[in-house]
Amino acid sequence: MKRTSRDIRTANRYEVLRQIIAASPTSRQELAAATGLSLATVATLVGELLDLGMITEVGFEDSAGGRPRGLVAVHASGGTLIGVDIAETYVRVELFDLALKVLARADEEMRPGESRPEQVVGHVAAAVGSVVAQAGAEGARVLGVGVSVPGQVDRATGVCEYAPNWDWHDVPLLDLLAEHIAYPLYLDNPLRACAVAELWFGAARGSGDAVVVNLGTGVGAGLVLGGGLHRGVSNSAGEWGHTTLVLDGRPCHCGDRGCVETYVGAPGIMRNLREVDPDSPLLHDGDQTATIDALARAVAADDPVALETVRRTARYLGAGIADLVNLLNPQVVVLSSWVAAALGEPLLREVREAVARHALRRPLTGTRIVLSPIPTDPVCLGAATFALEGALQSVGQRVRSRTVSTS
Amino acid sequence: MKRTSRDIRTANRYEVLRQIIAASPTSRQELAAATGLSLATVATLVGELLDLGMITEVGFEDSAGGRPRGLVAVHASGGTLIGVDIAETYVRVELFDLALKVLARADEEMRPGESRPEQVVGHVAAAVGSVVAQAGAEGARVLGVGVSVPGQVDRATGVCEYAPNWDWHDVPLLDLLAEHIAYPLYLDNPLRACAVAELWFGAARGSGDAVVVNLGTGVGAGLVLGGGLHRGVSNSAGEWGHTTLVLDGRPCHCGDRGCVETYVGAPGIMRNLREVDPDSPLLHDGDQTATIDALARAVAADDPVALETVRRTARYLGAGIADLVNLLNPQVVVLSSWVAAALGEPLLREVREAVARHALRRPLTGTRIVLSPIPTDPVCLGAATFALEGALQSVGQRVRSRTVSTS
Ligand SMILES: [Zn+2]
Ligand SMILES: [Zn+2]
Repeated sequence: MKRTSRDIRTANRYEVLRQIIAASPTSRQELAAATGLSLATVATLVGELLDLGMITEVGFEDSAGGRPRGLVAVHASGGTLIGVDIAETYVRVELFDLALKVLARADEEMRPGESRPEQVVGHVAAAVGSVVAQAGAEGARVLGVGVSVPGQVDRATGVCEYAPNWDWHDVPLLDLLAEHIAYPLYLDNPLRACAVAELWFGAARGSGDAVVVNLGTGVGAGLVLGGGLHRGVSNSAGEWGHTTLVLDGRPCHCGDRGCVETYVGAPGIMRNLREVDPDSPLLHDGDQTATIDALARAVAADDPVALETVRRTARYLGAGIADLVNLLNPQVVVLSSWVAAALGEPLLREVREAVARHALRRPLTGTRIVLSPIPTDPVCLGAATFALEGALQSVGQRVRSRTVSTS
Repeated sequence: MKRTSRDIRTANRYEVLRQIIAASPTSRQELAAATGLSLATVATLVGELLDLGMITEVGFEDSAGGRPRGLVAVHASGGTLIGVDIAETYVRVELFDLALKVLARADEEMRPGESRPEQVVGHVAAAVGSVVAQAGAEGARVLGVGVSVPGQVDRATGVCEYAPNWDWHDVPLLDLLAEHIAYPLYLDNPLRACAVAELWFGAARGSGDAVVVNLGTGVGAGLVLGGGLHRGVSNSAGEWGHTTLVLDGRPCHCGDRGCVETYVGAPGIMRNLREVDPDSPLLHDGDQTATIDALARAVAADDPVALETVRRTARYLGAGIADLVNLLNPQVVVLSSWVAAALGEPLLREVREAVARHALRRPLTGTRIVLSPIPTDPVCLGAATFALEGALQSVGQRVRSRTVSTS
């Protein structure tokens, strides 16, 4: 999509709040230095955030010889945000304060077969009710609820157009949720949730161009380009999992063959393990989480089958990530989601070596490859961030023409 | 890289001139309607372009009931631009007026072995001298010279870091050229030249997100994202030719195996042809241009070997383009450069079918796949456009704070 002056104003508003969250308390002068924006622009944006109650004045600091500088900080109790991670086998809901600290959490298990939209919505509503109740008075001031669903979504209409795991087609998920949840709702998918979580709170902070590689049951790449999320013309960019790595290779549920996902998604890793040792005791048939966890423990114990499985997986992953480096030339590639978290440093080391074998020298020298530093569920955090962005967008519109003094 | 308010102002300046070039004469009101910018913004930008002599007032039109509206048009004779296409076997130079109409052209052949930087620079200088002389008085007012060289370039320093065909490493090309050419010089590569040509004058006009697929000896993808060229952190984005299509497939000069380029670059297509019929009379050993031309003629004559070769090539190309669609979800994919021009509609038909077999439904429905509509050398045109953008950027800085009335 085309970028407008309005988009830039919104992005600047995001960046100032991001910086305040990262370094509270802070002065307008420090914010200007950290963001590269003019002091006047920062002052206007800080005024908007104060108006909304998202930040608060917390006193003054001396400036050498000059007049004291006003300090602002996140107004942690200025409202709450809810992030919903609808995954294949569970629903996780977290409630955050405005510093994006988790105040309450609720998990609902979904048994196989419980995949009708009404059943999933029921679990979400129950978990949202639970976190609001746990948070007590705090829970009453929910500014918005971000919902991540694994599939292709239309953000504007709130329709989940396709969710491969449950074979959902054109499910009006936001309308269904709105029957149970009275707060503003924002729908997107885990790819973009993880990308926005890294952009606000993780390894992509301050990067113009970043790729957040999501390694779970499915895989994908959330793209941060030009300082913002790249969504594409129909909000479906990032389907790296269905780019071809091996023409005519392993069959994929998308109907194609040789997709990246079939080699590095959790079921693909199980297949890599089976190819190394068909009778490996690490294999828990039908249970991805148990298998990946067993694999991680065996790697830590220097088990040769486990090491070879990670090496093979990294070989595929390295070729696929080198494609992203050659095509997009990002500053950073972040490995995110539960498979990356489980296999951690040993996977990262092998991946770095494999990428170096495949990528061109010039794009690669500009690129760092790191594990996600986010300690909690990045999908919940990212979904809550969508709600935060939604709240910031509406305040921007309301107070847009207001002038704020720079003192 | 991060997008700033300044980038947006520059992009708006480009867009207004682009629209004036496309639809001269035109009024500020029409420009505002066409670009979506406010009338005040358009009036400021038009004032800057008038100041620079790039456009000119050409009278008035009646507006129903209102006062007459001033009309502006490109000031074709307000200056000239030169585009330089340094290719593997030739140097082509074109001189353009400000409507980007070709006024003069010069070609220099480069024999194998003539690949030292000084030799190439000599050819460029001779051809630039030739077009300036041909253009006479017009030739004297050159605003800038854009130079495209096939390889990885650092625009800021003017250094060609790597050109695979000649094995150039860290050649200070702009400094060498400046010893012979006194006009402002702008260095970039054919990928980005073709992309900017499509963005200004071709199939990507008005698109926020577009991919310009360059099919020549080498292949690559110029990326237009968020309405502007995506360069990446070290100006080396777009190396789609060296993304993996067949893990462990054909060896590539980059050192890797199975790169897209080895299947759909001109030498790759020759190999596809050889696989269909090792003794085909269409094969001109060592002469890519003659082979691709023979292939195109044979396709037109329904030759079965030629048809099968195009089908195989399109099968590879379709998988590679589907990767771009799935990853970036662009509005348009443009097939550009000499191989695409030679194989034309028959290739396009097969590619569309192959992409449809590989791409996901949702990203694909938003995407058109077309041949480049640019009738001349897109690399020269794009290189000249870099010079035009350079001229617009400097004027923007000079008159930035000036206010222009909106009448
Ligand atoms: Zn697939
Ligand atoms: Zn290659």
